[in-house]
Formats: sequence, C-alpha cells, structure tokens
Amino acid sequence: MALINENYLKLQAGYLFPEIGRRMSEFIAANPDKKVIKMGIGDVTQPLVPSVVKAFHEGVEEMAKAETFKGYGPEQGYTFLREAIAKNSYQDRGVDISADDIFISDGSKCDTGNIQEIFGNENKIAICDPVYPVYSDTTVMSGKTGVCQANGYYDGIIYMPCTKENGFIPDLPTEIPDLIFLCYPNNPTGTVASKKELKKWVNFAIENKCIILYDSAYEAFIKDDEIPRSIYEIEGAKKVAIEFRSFSKTAGFTGTRCAYTVIPKELLAYDSKGKAHPIKPLWNRRQSTKFNGVSYPVQKAAAAIFTKEGKKEVAEVIAYYMENAKIMKESLRISGYEAFGGENAPYIWVKTKNNMKSWEFFDKALNEANVVGTPGSGFGPSGEGYFRFSAFADRENVIEAMERIKKLN
Amino acid sequence: MALINENYLKLQAGYLFPEIGRRMSEFIAANPDKKVIKMGIGDVTQPLVPSVVKAFHEGVEEMAKAETFKGYGPEQGYTFLREAIAKNSYQDRGVDISADDIFISDGSKCDTGNIQEIFGNENKIAICDPVYPVYSDTTVMSGKTGVCQANGYYDGIIYMPCTKENGFIPDLPTEIPDLIFLCYPNNPTGTVASKKELKKWVNFAIENKCIILYDSAYEAFIKDDEIPRSIYEIEGAKKVAIEFRSFSKTAGFTGTRCAYTVIPKELLAYDSKGKAHPIKPLWNRRQSTKFNGVSYPVQKAAAAIFTKEGKKEVAEVIAYYMENAKIMKESLRISGYEAFGGENAPYIWVKTKNNMKSWEFFDKALNEANVVGTPGSGFGPSGEGYFRFSAFADRENVIEAMERIKKLN
Repeated sequence: MALINENYLKLQAGYLFPEIGRRMSEFIAANPDKKVIKMGIGDVTQPLVPSVVKAFHEGVEEMAKAETFKGYGPEQGYTFLREAIAKNSYQDRGVDISADDIFISDGSKCDTGNIQEIFGNENKIAICDPVYPVYSDTTVMSGKTGVCQANGYYDGIIYMPCTKENGFIPDLPTEIPDLIFLCYPNNPTGTVASKKELKKWVNFAIENKCIILYDSAYEAFIKDDEIPRSIYEIEGAKKVAIEFRSFSKTAGFTGTRCAYTVIPKELLAYDSKGKAHPIKPLWNRRQSTKFNGVSYPVQKAAAAIFTKEGKKEVAEVIAYYMENAKIMKESLRISGYEAFGGENAPYIWVKTKNNMKSWEFFDKALNEANVVGTPGSGFGPSGEGYFRFSAFADRENVIEAMERIKKLN
Repeated sequence: MALINENYLKLQAGYLFPEIGRRMSEFIAANPDKKVIKMGIGDVTQPLVPSVVKAFHEGVEEMAKAETFKGYGPEQGYTFLREAIAKNSYQDRGVDISADDIFISDGSKCDTGNIQEIFGNENKIAICDPVYPVYSDTTVMSGKTGVCQANGYYDGIIYMPCTKENGFIPDLPTEIPDLIFLCYPNNPTGTVASKKELKKWVNFAIENKCIILYDSAYEAFIKDDEIPRSIYEIEGAKKVAIEFRSFSKTAGFTGTRCAYTVIPKELLAYDSKGKAHPIKPLWNRRQSTKFNGVSYPVQKAAAAIFTKEGKKEVAEVIAYYMENAKIMKESLRISGYEAFGGENAPYIWVKTKNNMKSWEFFDKALNEANVVGTPGSGFGPSGEGYFRFSAFADRENVIEAMERIKKLN
C-alpha cells in the first residue's frame, strides 16, 4: 500500500505567496476597474539587460546548429560560468573561492530546499523568525520537526526571534542547533549583518560544529563597503558555511532561472560515529543524481552579467530599485510609519500603526489603496504587526502606491 | 554537530555516466589522435528544430522588453504549455488527461528522483533490473534501503529481473511492493510493453494499492500503433499511476531542459491510519515550495513542439534516429551479436560474445574500436554481459562505429 510522507500533513495552510496571489486575484476579479499595484511577492519588473539578452540569443542560436549544439551539460554547471562567478564575485573581492566550489542551479529556492537532503534527519535546525518560509516548510517536509503549535512554531525547530529590540539580528540560541539558516541582506526585514555580527556566528558554528546555511541572494543590493557581501569574508567561514546566491534579483532572472551554491572543500559534517566527511562530494552526488544542469542558453545569458557592459547595465537596474527603496522609506516615514531596511536591501519592513495585525493591514491596503504588499506574519510570529514592501516595482507605481498609502486612515 | 545523511555512504561507486565519461576522457587524453565515437550516455546530437528555435528567440525577446517581461511564472508551468501537452499528447489520442494534471519541470531525472519525497520512507520500492540508475540511487538516498550486497542489490529494494528469458518484461513480484518503477519504451533494453502487459501491472497496482511510477520518456519513438504510449491508455491507470515524460529525447532538449509529470486527481495514497489522500496536492505543495518553475523562454520553445510545423520537424528528427537504430541493429546482427530493442525505442541492447563482462567489452570497444557505449552491468546485475548502444548519433558516425565493431575480435 503506497504511503504518503505524513510530514506534509503537518504543513500549515497555503504557502504565503500563493495565498497573497489568491486574495489579490479575488479582489481584481471583483474590481476589474481598479488599478492594483503589486509589491507583494518581491518579483522584479525590469527586463533583462541588453548584454544578457544578446548572450541569451547567441546561446539559442548555438542550439540551432549541429556544430555548436549542446546536449547534456555538466550537472555542476558550465566551467565558463563557474569561473566567471569565482573570479568576479569572490576572487576580485579578495575571497578565496574557486570555480570548483560553485554549483550552478535553477534557483535558490530549490537549493535552500534541496540542501537538507544531504544532512541527516537527526539534525536540529535553527531559523530566524520572521523568515523566508521555504527554510521552515522544507524542514517540516524532510521530517525533522513535530507538529505546528498555535503560535505557528513547529516543534523541533529552534526559532530565533528578530525584533526591533535586537535590531532584527538574532541572539545566539541557547539550545545548540546543528544547521543554522541565516539570510543577509535579510528577507523580509531588509536588515544587514556587519562583519562583527557574522564573525560571532562563524565562531559559534566552529565551536559547536554547526553548519551555517547562508542565503546571500540579495548581496548585490549592498551599497555600504563595510557590510560583508559573502560569509566567506569572515575568517574560518569556509569550514562551516554553505552560501546560496541567485541571479533572480541581481539581474532580473526570476523568470529566467539561474542561481548557485558555494560549498568549499574545507566544509565538514559528521557521521553518527563522529567521523568527519567533506560535504562537497555529497552535494555533488546529489546534484549528479537528481539534477541535470541548467539550460545552456540560460547559463550563457548569466555569464554575460560578468562582462564589462553587463556589470554596468545590471548596476543601473539595481540603482533604479534602490532609488525606489529610498523613495518608499522616506514616504512611509512621512506617512507616520516606522520603517526598517531598504538601505542595503530591496525590502522595507514597516511597523503597522496601532498594532494592526499584518493580514488586516494587507486587506486594508488591498481594498482601500489597491496596493499589494506582504503581511509580516506570513514570515513567522515575530513578523506579526509588520508589513513588507518590495522595491521591485516601476517608479511611477512606487510613487503612486506611496501616495495611496499616505491617504490610508 | 552537523550530521550527514548517512544513506549517501551506502551508494556504490560513481554514478554510471560520470564513470563512462571519466574512462573516455582518460582514453582521449592518452590518444589525442584517435577519433572516438560516443554512443554512451544517450545524448542527442541533432540541433533544436527551426520552430523551436524561433519560439525560443521570441521568448528571449519578450524578456528584453518591459511590456512583455516575465518574472516568476507558475511553479506548475505556464498554462499555454500545459494545455498544449494535454491536448496533443493525451486528449487527441483519446486519453482523458487535463492541463491541470500536468506539472512542467526541468527534467525527468529531477522528477523521478524528487517524486519519492512525497511518499513515506516505509514504502517498499520495486525496480527492474537492469534499470536507469536514478531510480535505485534516489531510493537509497531517501533512506528506504539497507546496504548494498555483493551482487549490487540494495537490501530493502524489490528487484525484478528483466532477462532474455522473460523478454525483458518482469514477472509480477512475489513480495508486494508499494511503489513500482516501470519504464517503457525501456531504458536500457529498448523493450516495449503491450497493452496486455501494462494492464497486468495496473490490475496488480489496483489490487494491492500500489502506485506505478511510469517513466515514458521515450514514448515518441514508438512506431507501432498497438503499443501504448501512455499508461493512461490502460483502464484504471489514473487511480494508480504517475507518468513522467520529457522533451529531452523527443525534441533534443537534453541541454535545454524541459519535462513534465502527470498526476491525475484520482490518484490516492494512504496515511498510516489507512486514510486515503490525493497525491496531486502533495506534489503541488512540493513543487510550490522547492521549485520555481522552468525558464519562460524554454517553456515557450517547448510549446512550439506542438505546432503543426514543430510536430513535422520533430518527427523528422525522430525518424533520423530510428533509421540509425535500424542500421545499427542490422549491422550488429551481421557482426554476430544478439541484439534487442531498437524498433520502438532508441536503444539497442546487445549480448556480448562468449559471455564477456560488460565493462570488459566497454574497455575493448573503447580501446580497439574507439567506440563508447554503455556497459549493461551499470544498469544492474541482470545487465551483466550486455551492452547498450544509443541511436542518438550522427549517421556517418553510426555507420563508422558499426564498421569498427564488426572488426572487433
């Protein structure tokens, strides 16, 4: 008799973004004359930059001719892309990561979910609260947790509240975890972590033989030179951290799909007898067995991000979004909201007025201002009373949305 | 302390195809003057067809303009592609599958591996021997097996030998499994299953509440109208079968990456209390949480396969490969080899002479004929003494490879 994975039954309600989509679609269907401005799921709006488009077309053209046609590529990604990343994103910034440490994938959502497969189910996972729901949902699916409590916490996960009081940087957990998800620049709070903060976490991981799963999908939005873009800028991190990065937000690849995971050869985990094993061959085996590489034209397109022209074009798009963030943060403050983030990150984390609940504010913003944002409580109980605005929007929509929010009672 | 998934330690040696690649690369490095003909990993050689290339370019162009730019798409795939598949691959052939039952992915390797996540680890898996190694390796990784025995069988898997004696169609297992992997047209033996054979399996699954995981990646190579292309041509199959299909071989997408999985709403599995649950929402949840959809231009390219021109062009490429298969099978027989498959499938399954071991024949063919095929034993112990040739090659290479094989002692 075929048996389901009963861990799926523990999962709560719908995944956050589909639920937002559902409420939004319902409203639009009922109010076809209203212009709804979407700043909810954090999806980019600017098209692919010219260098990327050109390389993408070239890649397609290569697939059209027998002499240049590409069949199965390496599961780890093409060397040209791995080398471009190693050089431009790491070595040129003084971080010693080699092409061989980089695994190309079709998305950080996939990677941050799939990574748990190479770790045993005895591991205790620590996550921030609020947090990108994929970390907790995939932890539940994998069978590392108990049921969900009334407050939205799953038994068996170590939650690390990120609040206004601790500046949205969690305190070190009192219960020692085995795997720790961290994300900076943070989704959803828009917070960044200083070198000193990250050093604290790396030291903690070394001391306790933990592994940090470091989601750095928004590193391209860091303006401040003092803020680390990679966890590997911290001494010792190569022994205790996996880094996830994506071209989704960096270069508008949310619909094009390309990302990567960095696993240095120094990174170790242990078997039940305490014997150390390098993690990189395990991930290599996982990817070789369950993945077949990213579409060749997509990898070719991604590599164009690292050309001279590509870098310039991508930087302009990022500057455009960050100008949005600046406008939004200023406008929200003028409207009397307390707002965080948005300076080295594309997200603004807003405290609702009078402790209004997050979903209540979502419905109010949708119904009265026709603006869609993301309810903070969807990211965890500590997000209750907060709301996330994404800077990924067209300028005129940003301005209009902020004007409409201003008029909300 | 971070703990590894110790099930990975049970996995044997390298995954088959990387090992072939390694030996081949070594030979090429040592013999740079030899022209090696590759018929090993079953990778296509013909470029994408013109209709697909045109649509692929159009998709890229849409990503280049703000008005037509696509960000995150539906995790399940775009409706235009799901509808094209439902109509052309199922409804027009009299099979009642709706667009909503179809989940677009980046590969059948991913799908056939990932599908086990939604099933509990108590399930007993049945696989054919020989078999596509992904089924067994992902079963081991998921923790459903014990260690590997000397003959290459993992404890806890039900192996179903496919031999010359049973026509490479397994007998019903005496121990009742919960999930059954079947693949027709078969990789590696090139065998097809008749309606009567499949009906036997569907009835067995209904009777025992099993689920059949039906890999139909090579259905496009079936010429004979009597052979079912989909398991859903069999009455009752929608209650007990998941079907996997791919554009990899059908339309040369091995480097472009697009496939799909069909899960009818009628398909049920059970929890430990015996309560029935539909499987489709579980897979939908898995895909929504751990996957972010296939690149938009790739989906647009895939949809072009179903246009009038696209169908004609793809059929021509398939006919080209199948003519290869015919040439190969004939030549191998003339050379005194017993050869199977290759009539409704792109693979030819060859018995070595004098019971030579598969890897021995691999090395002999590589060293003496400079031809790369796939050792049958790499697919399981019942493949020992066999060798797989793939029809995915250029015609002149096929002819030359067969001439060289003829001269082997």
